[in-house]
Amino acid sequence: MDQAQARAWLATAVEEARAGLAEGGIPIGAALYGADGTLLGRGHNRRVQDDDPSTHAETAAFRAAGRQRSYRGTTMVTTLSPCWYCSGLVRQFGISRVVIGEAVTFRGGHDWLAEHGVEIVLLDDADCVALMRDFIEDRPELWSEDIGD
Amino acid sequence: MDQAQARAWLATAVEEARAGLAEGGIPIGAALYGADGTLLGRGHNRRVQDDDPSTHAETAAFRAAGRQRSYRGTTMVTTLSPCWYCSGLVRQFGISRVVIGEAVTFRGGHDWLAEHGVEIVLLDDADCVALMRDFIEDRPELWSEDIGD
Repeated sequence: MDQAQARAWLATAVEEARAGLAEGGIPIGAALYGADGTLLGRGHNRRVQDDDPSTHAETAAFRAAGRQRSYRGTTMVTTLSPCWYCSGLVRQFGISRVVIGEAVTFRGGHDWLAEHGVEIVLLDDADCVALMRDFIEDRPELWSEDIGD
Repeated sequence: MDQAQARAWLATAVEEARAGLAEGGIPIGAALYGADGTLLGRGHNRRVQDDDPSTHAETAAFRAAGRQRSYRGTTMVTTLSPCWYCSGLVRQFGISRVVIGEAVTFRGGHDWLAEHGVEIVLLDDADCVALMRDFIEDRPELWSEDIGD
């Protein structure tokens, strides 16, 4: 896909990540875009805010998009490489593409998704890296909890 | 693990599946048990009830258990073989064991979990099979939607 488009969509996910950070949460954001470029849903990690370990950024965006008959052609945009839980979500529902802000601070299941036919667009976004680096340095125990480490 | 114990725990998941069916939902239930056998959380699929595609039985039970520092020694009990989304949840959080009611009507990612060190206890429970067979016959389109088919 077009890199300018990928970066424009990533900006939505970054806004979500910053909103989560401002709430005292884990700064990971995501957005689900339709095949026609419509924003279907957006969200961020809510472990701290809702005491909810099941709401990762990607599952929040997926939930916000509501029930969809098909995910063919959709794109999940996330500030961070998706963990196995969120990678499983992408594979199960046949989301076609994942745009990833960075995979430097955490490397999830995106190679596995690529093997299974998902288009992966891995950006190396300095803002996304800085958000996670600062967070992991500040709250290493919270980050470990979020990824089951 | 002891089969009598596995079947006793499965009964909790079956109760959840039946509760979901009575609400007009998809009859899949799950429960998360701690290493010491304590029930940590239980739940069922809520796609229909909450218009929420992100709440599968396993993610509902996981959420209901709240924030946990570690999932070492825990057991996820589910009426049906876990889809990729729920299999990813188990792998990411290091849930040690999965007890499965049946994998006849749907085969998810449990072999993949076994390859990655998760203990799989696959029962061939006639009630679980009947629940899903009847549901899939009644509502094939709803079932397809739930697994992104």
